[in-house]
Amino acid sequence: MVKRKMCIIGAGMVGSATMMAILNLNLVAEIVLIDQNEKKAEGEALDVFHTTSFTYVPNVMIRKGSYEDCKDSQIIVMSAGPSIKPGEKPDRRILTQTNANVTRAVMKEITRYTQEAILIFVSNPVDVVTYIAQNEFGYPRHKIFGTGTLLDTARMRRIIGEHYLVDTKNVHGYVLGEHGQTAFITWSICNIGGIPIDSVAPKFKLPPIDKEEILKKVKNAGLEILLAKGYTNYGIAESVARIVTAICLNELSVLPVTTTLEGEYGITNVAISVPCIIGKEGIHDILEIPLSLNEQEALKKSAESVMKLMSDFEII
Amino acid sequence: MVKRKMCIIGAGMVGSATMMAILNLNLVAEIVLIDQNEKKAEGEALDVFHTTSFTYVPNVMIRKGSYEDCKDSQIIVMSAGPSIKPGEKPDRRILTQTNANVTRAVMKEITRYTQEAILIFVSNPVDVVTYIAQNEFGYPRHKIFGTGTLLDTARMRRIIGEHYLVDTKNVHGYVLGEHGQTAFITWSICNIGGIPIDSVAPKFKLPPIDKEEILKKVKNAGLEILLAKGYTNYGIAESVARIVTAICLNELSVLPVTTTLEGEYGITNVAISVPCIIGKEGIHDILEIPLSLNEQEALKKSAESVMKLMSDFEII
Amino acid sequence: MVKRKMCIIGAGMVGSATMMAILNLNLVAEIVLIDQNEKKAEGEALDVFHTTSFTYVPNVMIRKGSYEDCKDSQIIVMSAGPSIKPGEKPDRRILTQTNANVTRAVMKEITRYTQEAILIFVSNPVDVVTYIAQNEFGYPRHKIFGTGTLLDTARMRRIIGEHYLVDTKNVHGYVLGEHGQTAFITWSICNIGGIPIDSVAPKFKLPPIDKEEILKKVKNAGLEILLAKGYTNYGIAESVARIVTAICLNELSVLPVTTTLEGEYGITNVAISVPCIIGKEGIHDILEIPLSLNEQEALKKSAESVMKLMSDFEII
Amino acid sequence: MVKRKMCIIGAGMVGSATMMAILNLNLVAEIVLIDQNEKKAEGEALDVFHTTSFTYVPNVMIRKGSYEDCKDSQIIVMSAGPSIKPGEKPDRRILTQTNANVTRAVMKEITRYTQEAILIFVSNPVDVVTYIAQNEFGYPRHKIFGTGTLLDTARMRRIIGEHYLVDTKNVHGYVLGEHGQTAFITWSICNIGGIPIDSVAPKFKLPPIDKEEILKKVKNAGLEILLAKGYTNYGIAESVARIVTAICLNELSVLPVTTTLEGEYGITNVAISVPCIIGKEGIHDILEIPLSLNEQEALKKSAESVMKLMSDFEII
Repeated sequence: MVKRKMCIIGAGMVGSATMMAILNLNLVAEIVLIDQNEKKAEGEALDVFHTTSFTYVPNVMIRKGSYEDCKDSQIIVMSAGPSIKPGEKPDRRILTQTNANVTRAVMKEITRYTQEAILIFVSNPVDVVTYIAQNEFGYPRHKIFGTGTLLDTARMRRIIGEHYLVDTKNVHGYVLGEHGQTAFITWSICNIGGIPIDSVAPKFKLPPIDKEEILKKVKNAGLEILLAKGYTNYGIAESVARIVTAICLNELSVLPVTTTLEGEYGITNVAISVPCIIGKEGIHDILEIPLSLNEQEALKKSAESVMKLMSDFEII
Repeated sequence: MVKRKMCIIGAGMVGSATMMAILNLNLVAEIVLIDQNEKKAEGEALDVFHTTSFTYVPNVMIRKGSYEDCKDSQIIVMSAGPSIKPGEKPDRRILTQTNANVTRAVMKEITRYTQEAILIFVSNPVDVVTYIAQNEFGYPRHKIFGTGTLLDTARMRRIIGEHYLVDTKNVHGYVLGEHGQTAFITWSICNIGGIPIDSVAPKFKLPPIDKEEILKKVKNAGLEILLAKGYTNYGIAESVARIVTAICLNELSVLPVTTTLEGEYGITNVAISVPCIIGKEGIHDILEIPLSLNEQEALKKSAESVMKLMSDFEII
Repeated sequence: MVKRKMCIIGAGMVGSATMMAILNLNLVAEIVLIDQNEKKAEGEALDVFHTTSFTYVPNVMIRKGSYEDCKDSQIIVMSAGPSIKPGEKPDRRILTQTNANVTRAVMKEITRYTQEAILIFVSNPVDVVTYIAQNEFGYPRHKIFGTGTLLDTARMRRIIGEHYLVDTKNVHGYVLGEHGQTAFITWSICNIGGIPIDSVAPKFKLPPIDKEEILKKVKNAGLEILLAKGYTNYGIAESVARIVTAICLNELSVLPVTTTLEGEYGITNVAISVPCIIGKEGIHDILEIPLSLNEQEALKKSAESVMKLMSDFEII
Repeated sequence: MVKRKMCIIGAGMVGSATMMAILNLNLVAEIVLIDQNEKKAEGEALDVFHTTSFTYVPNVMIRKGSYEDCKDSQIIVMSAGPSIKPGEKPDRRILTQTNANVTRAVMKEITRYTQEAILIFVSNPVDVVTYIAQNEFGYPRHKIFGTGTLLDTARMRRIIGEHYLVDTKNVHGYVLGEHGQTAFITWSICNIGGIPIDSVAPKFKLPPIDKEEILKKVKNAGLEILLAKGYTNYGIAESVARIVTAICLNELSVLPVTTTLEGEYGITNVAISVPCIIGKEGIHDILEIPLSLNEQEALKKSAESVMKLMSDFEII
């Protein structure tokens, strides 16, 4: 039987937490960690590999590897490249030049070995690096996408759920657009268990949320964690795990991820996050959900912002 | 540390499948199966208990027991009493007299030992037996409820998800009212990933669903399975498992379950299914979601139908 | 990405419980149930399929199918054919003629579509049907095996663990040989957490086990459950789930399963249960563990008993 | 129903990885992270809390807190205090004075609020801090223990399993004694699937392991990871998760953990790791497994080494 194998590129905080998150899901038989710093990759892999001895952890192969391991991998997670450090300007854009280059170098390596694997991009600015990966290498485009606003969406649901003391899984709606300062919340379709967000407060006998405040909290969540612990990892690791589950089990789940639009929402040739159907082939479909006029405007502005960034760095 | 213990009353198809469903969730340290037919309870418990030897099944105590075990149980699932057999009229109402009596006998036993446990009613007609349990024994009412239309809701989401080739977890909406022929779908708030149900078809490039057909399928699903295999068990067992998770982890999840209304939706003194917040105390709140006029009408009719049934059998 | 698909042949108690057991493990994206009685297969599949709507159940495809589905399946579980009914002689041998024929008919169908899938036999007498499947169809032999004494071993560990009030996962040792009356326990290597079984009692401050009694209980466990509930299903379903995990994750686990020996333990041309290494290719190796003289004798006798049975029915 | 709550003291690498490891096990409804650096505790908690929005992560409460939260906690994990840094002498002993003081300060706080919770010590040198906690505060001794050589045991099994290409869960034996340089492997009872370790090589057609080498590797594993990534966290986090499972489900599992011996193995008044039965009350029993003369000697020497350390720092 074909052994399900997955590569994670980048043995930093995100890559290693992703290993841990995926290990316990029973989804893959082998996780290979690839990093320039081989020692680091080996240490992270060993630390996780040891846990397979415990009764309820599956006996999966976890090890460091090299790009050659991409050859027979079904999924490749790209989390290499620097991330923002505390003290730096809290803008994922400052990483653009460096991570554009890192992405190209990594894609060059990956494409030496495979055009089959589904590629999940995590590195920032995720919209830019996803665009590069999707458009510069002739790789089947639907097999590449970025984690985008999946984590922002999770944060928004969590924050609203906590306010109203209700299961976050009953909070619906998305954060869409750039994974960054121009992201916005699709308030027009937000609801809790079917109750439109604007009618929720009296039903739960609690004061209404302050929408501006929520959006601000969502946008600053990453920074807040960064300042508190020096990096973010568990949230993004579970975002990847959610996507990997959808792929491996062909769940056809609606998840907001980053992909290059070609006319959807009236936007072309820029990668931002919109709801997509995720299954065994990667992106099975890009979903055009109904947006209010304001939200349509916000999506376009967000797209323009990403486009401007790419143009500033001569990516398009 | 207090050991988390759960009793299941009724070692039939549903009771035993429920044991199996809950065992693997890590939620409880002891599952006790209670049945008049002690031999049957012992056989079912043994069959499941043996599985605890396998590597990934937790080492939980599974055994037959007696009502005395209710004393220190945190959750009690009531699945005793006859269910409809193939060949019989496919109406859960025919069980009314028998299961009303069974419920009273069981509640008399339970209340000898506890007023603390959360009681989950599965036996049919679930609306009637839940009403009896909630209203005749002075037991804290919020600690009792029925599985109601939770499974009907799951079926509706599954059927629609399959039609549109999308993850059933992205299909939203409820089946509410009686767990029976007068149940209805809350079409006005149904959506897939935020797209109103009536706009979904073009987005998925698939023909639209036939709403009448969907409702018919949902209502007949139980009967269809009954005719094919002689009973239904796995669907309802996982419904109970979903509820038990919400209770044990205090998830405060919105789940449609059966409870006696007291003015909510303008309905009083009858138990039907509406969305409730489920957590460690049982029902933390009854949620009044927005319904269209038609749906409000349908809910009232459904309530009247249950009321009529109860009045026919002189329960109210 | 290749979708992981699994077929279960036989929609009886065992087949349907196996679906349920495997669904929650995240191991496969599609489970297909095949039965002559298509209505039954559909009913069982539907009942399980509905559960995928619940939050913590993965969105996996569950449906009835036909032998053509074997074509791209990675694993096929064979649980078709009659099993012993209460009131019948409690000997799995009485099924020999019928299930030998059923096995041949099923293998003929399977081999029309694949020589790639791993085949797991559950039907009884499992030693005989596994022999037939492994030796009459030119199918790669290591890709076929029977559940054999895996469940007997689980029962032995469970019973001893309960006696000494210790986690069954710390009880080591096997039941080997025929999955039937001549099975025996490898007492010479039995231990609890490293303490030889004969020294355990004082360490746990409990009376010693009665070995004869334990063996009797293990052998009768299936019958006891059969008499109590009319069939056995959960224990054997989890046995299959344990094996499927080992295969899908390539765990290389040591599990006692049925395979045709060719000189191992001095035994040739008969299928019985001995410890094997189970991974993605099926049986990666047959392990010759040390046995006492008595145990070697018992294994040979058990092999002869199966051989005699096969010769009685002119299978060899 | 009583909500299952757990406190983790210390929001460092170990504490935060432990949150993540335990979250997905469904065992607790609330995880509270306590740290002097409240900002850090909040950041780590937030990062994990956000993941509860994802479909398959349970909706559990994760937050920072204070010692007052110990009051109604059932389990408290103590991972506060400095750990060894790369470049420092690779000896957990150098932390003795500091962490002895940290332990006393923490125990003083904990005992203000509870004598009920099970306390799991992770900080190093774990044998010393466990001794202090068990003996200086009048807290029920069996409710306190250290992770000790549980992780060393996991590493030993993993390393041997990898050598012989066999599931690590089929490798049996322990690392016992000090969680440090004097730890040793109980070779006399080591086996793979029932085959004594010295007879394994020919059975697996592979060269035999070098026992000295294995012990060295096990002892250096922590250091190796430390040098590669700057700390160790995932291995130890899963060790804690294994223990928490055993406690919450009352598994009565045999796990090597640190506790003060009082005559067992002829050793008194020193805390080292030996196999214990772990369940809802903490340590239900200390198990005296058979050891060879050499191993008995090694255990005594290890005990003396810990005693000497404690005496050097005037702890006893």
